[in-house]
Amino acid sequence: MSNPFFKNHGPLKISEIVNFLNINIDSLHYKKNIHDIKDLASSTKNDLTFFHSKKYKDVAKKTKASFCLTTEVLKTELPESCLPLVVDNVLLSTSKITSIFYPDSIHDIFDNTVTLIDDTQFKDKVIYGKNILIGNNVSIGNNCKIGHNTIIEKNVVIGNDCNIGSNNVIRNTLVKNNVKILDNCIIGKHGFGFFPIKNKNLRYPHIGIVIIEDNCEIGCGSTIDRGSMSNTIIGKNTYLDNQIHIAHNVKIGENSIIAGQVGIAGSSIIGNNVKIGGQAGISGHLKIGNNVEIGGGSGVIRDIPDNTKVMGYPAKNIREFLRDNKWYTKQL
Amino acid sequence: MSNPFFKNHGPLKISEIVNFLNINIDSLHYKKNIHDIKDLASSTKNDLTFFHSKKYKDVAKKTKASFCLTTEVLKTELPESCLPLVVDNVLLSTSKITSIFYPDSIHDIFDNTVTLIDDTQFKDKVIYGKNILIGNNVSIGNNCKIGHNTIIEKNVVIGNDCNIGSNNVIRNTLVKNNVKILDNCIIGKHGFGFFPIKNKNLRYPHIGIVIIEDNCEIGCGSTIDRGSMSNTIIGKNTYLDNQIHIAHNVKIGENSIIAGQVGIAGSSIIGNNVKIGGQAGISGHLKIGNNVEIGGGSGVIRDIPDNTKVMGYPAKNIREFLRDNKWYTKQL
Amino acid sequence: MSNPFFKNHGPLKISEIVNFLNINIDSLHYKKNIHDIKDLASSTKNDLTFFHSKKYKDVAKKTKASFCLTTEVLKTELPESCLPLVVDNVLLSTSKITSIFYPDSIHDIFDNTVTLIDDTQFKDKVIYGKNILIGNNVSIGNNCKIGHNTIIEKNVVIGNDCNIGSNNVIRNTLVKNNVKILDNCIIGKHGFGFFPIKNKNLRYPHIGIVIIEDNCEIGCGSTIDRGSMSNTIIGKNTYLDNQIHIAHNVKIGENSIIAGQVGIAGSSIIGNNVKIGGQAGISGHLKIGNNVEIGGGSGVIRDIPDNTKVMGYPAKNIREFLRDNKWYTKQL
Repeated sequence: MSNPFFKNHGPLKISEIVNFLNINIDSLHYKKNIHDIKDLASSTKNDLTFFHSKKYKDVAKKTKASFCLTTEVLKTELPESCLPLVVDNVLLSTSKITSIFYPDSIHDIFDNTVTLIDDTQFKDKVIYGKNILIGNNVSIGNNCKIGHNTIIEKNVVIGNDCNIGSNNVIRNTLVKNNVKILDNCIIGKHGFGFFPIKNKNLRYPHIGIVIIEDNCEIGCGSTIDRGSMSNTIIGKNTYLDNQIHIAHNVKIGENSIIAGQVGIAGSSIIGNNVKIGGQAGISGHLKIGNNVEIGGGSGVIRDIPDNTKVMGYPAKNIREFLRDNKWYTKQL
Repeated sequence: MSNPFFKNHGPLKISEIVNFLNINIDSLHYKKNIHDIKDLASSTKNDLTFFHSKKYKDVAKKTKASFCLTTEVLKTELPESCLPLVVDNVLLSTSKITSIFYPDSIHDIFDNTVTLIDDTQFKDKVIYGKNILIGNNVSIGNNCKIGHNTIIEKNVVIGNDCNIGSNNVIRNTLVKNNVKILDNCIIGKHGFGFFPIKNKNLRYPHIGIVIIEDNCEIGCGSTIDRGSMSNTIIGKNTYLDNQIHIAHNVKIGENSIIAGQVGIAGSSIIGNNVKIGGQAGISGHLKIGNNVEIGGGSGVIRDIPDNTKVMGYPAKNIREFLRDNKWYTKQL
Repeated sequence: MSNPFFKNHGPLKISEIVNFLNINIDSLHYKKNIHDIKDLASSTKNDLTFFHSKKYKDVAKKTKASFCLTTEVLKTELPESCLPLVVDNVLLSTSKITSIFYPDSIHDIFDNTVTLIDDTQFKDKVIYGKNILIGNNVSIGNNCKIGHNTIIEKNVVIGNDCNIGSNNVIRNTLVKNNVKILDNCIIGKHGFGFFPIKNKNLRYPHIGIVIIEDNCEIGCGSTIDRGSMSNTIIGKNTYLDNQIHIAHNVKIGENSIIAGQVGIAGSSIIGNNVKIGGQAGISGHLKIGNNVEIGGGSGVIRDIPDNTKVMGYPAKNIREFLRDNKWYTKQL
């Protein structure tokens, strides 16, 4: 993933990396520079990658990275051009090294680069309310409106014809054209991702951003977290109601409709033309197909194929749900 | 519904309306003025109405409107005094014409009429915090308090003895006496109502308001949307806990108690003395009777008669819920 | 419970108390001063206590209080040193008397003691954003950051190395060291506790506070209510995701992980190393053991012993949940 917002503090010498991880490699590599840490597929020869599950064996075989964090068992799958760095916990080591490349992506501190919009270049371009704060590295297109007390922190790009309400906090986010964000939303903060460690959890970096495509609407009091190693995406013309929570790395397709208080857990992928009823929950790492309808209050804990209607907790095909609840036609 | 807040941009000539809808009527009507668009029952002879379902046949027969958006099939039910305007999609056409009468009711833009309360007539009347903004057409009764950063946008009436907390945004709302609104609430924004159209949904107008009756309490982080063609109402002495979402057109009775994170979908009607446990959800367009108790976490997907206790998802009579969960007395 | 924040308006003469409750006792006691109202165990001879359920019989026998609100039936359990004040509704009377001792604990009015942080002693000590308000009786440790528009109302103690985001409202709260509170949280307001009375509910006092122990993280848009007669506690290194609601008197142990949109109802006690999936709900007055895992979307309505995994609504042992949902392996 090319990341537009977080400063890469690389390159690092590979000697620094192996020292940090307390592992040994042939010292002839020591002076090599590592420019970035990326996934198996997108790495180039100046990058470090990581390989933690045999699920990714086929991609691993073709990686162009020169170094790879992996395990004793998996290392044999790597091509000769890629030197394995064997560690106990691949994801933990990946997290630690990513934190060195992108130290600003771990903890979200309020943005102290902000100034009142009245003192920025947007003063004559944007129609705006009172007490609006704008951080560094922000751009705003034509014909936009921003409501009172909203904070556009650093690293935000807003397109044309957008209508942003009051009391929002937005950071690390790409807002395309004709997007409406109502009031009280928090968009672009890091996700709820960390390694649980007794007495002091270890947060992993979130170098992804939030992308909100054209014509979307985001309801009041919603939270959309940015991604960890990929982006969180709301597809074109998708509408979110109030009090919705979209976790890190979630990708929602186009023309979808998501009712109030829905929650979508980390890394799930939702298709196009999907309708989700109020208070439904989608577990993490699932794939919901196109044209799926999920009834209000459902709890989805497995993938759902295209063109399927589901309801229930756990969510099942609507036919089964109705059959199982035949009593429901009786007197209450 | 007489609407106190949204400016009616009528009258419109009927010729403008039929041109806009691209339909034909006898040109002798062309110069007639239409003053408003209203439902079948409340229309007078200067109004346009709409009739989209045979469910409303009996009211249609007696409408006083001179013109009616309807279908080829339904038009025969109208009285002679009412000229049918036959369209493909009655609700869509109704929405479009309502948007012409009430263009301000479609999209919620932040209110740029606001000024600091220190510069208003309320300066000496209200006890208030810092950074409070007040819009046009606001009235506030005696002995009220308003907390920091709260925005009372245009079209808000607040009664006596009200206590409004910090960080709220309130618009298009009638707050009666002795009401408490805690912190971080968004009250009176438009509902989640639109016609889904590929690549660019069409929002329908929301000309209803929110009415919060005497002695109510609204918890932190709650959202109460205003109605589309009717009002959203919270009845006397009804208490809402934190993070509750009340959708457009919902009407809640008196002396009801609604626990945290409950969501009530659009147009549902809740009776008096109703208790709803935390996280329960009520689907749209339902009727919940008086003295009903709904267990925490329940998902209600059908009407509930008076004096009934329900629980479960889907919610069933508490007796059946307990019988179906007998295993629950066993060891976990 | 010793309360650090609410001013005790005592002592009161016992004659005032019995007059207020409209009950009779021997006038020889009239001049005795009552310094505070406390539970059976923590009362001393200058205090009034209350005893409303035979469940507390054993503690009642040993109370050191000189007076006790109780019933005709229960009064015989009290020691001779403790004079019973017999009332119809012990909890209601307790609430009324507590309200006299602690009138500030009933309704949450915005704090009008606040000033801009720039005008306080914290100006040079804290790294802070714009428009930050600080009330009376606030202390903040070293190396803390506070984001824009956050309001630290009166009666807040913040330890060292804390990172508080934007748009928060915090009151009556003890925040220990290295705590992160993200954006848009409301912490320390009174709980959703009152006696339902037709046409005008009676709020009971909330003299408890919120305690957030070392190394915790509180996600965006969360609400944590303070306790009524005890405190609400988030244990060390416990992480809360976004949009979580923690009701009054809840106590959560150490090293627990609570995912987005979870709600925990009043007075429940959660152990150490507990994991709760997104949108799960815990009913009130329950005891959840150590090392418990609760699946996302679950509705927990009974106690859960240590080391148990549960899921479902109502939540059952994960083995039973999987067995009951065998169909789930079939085609959707």
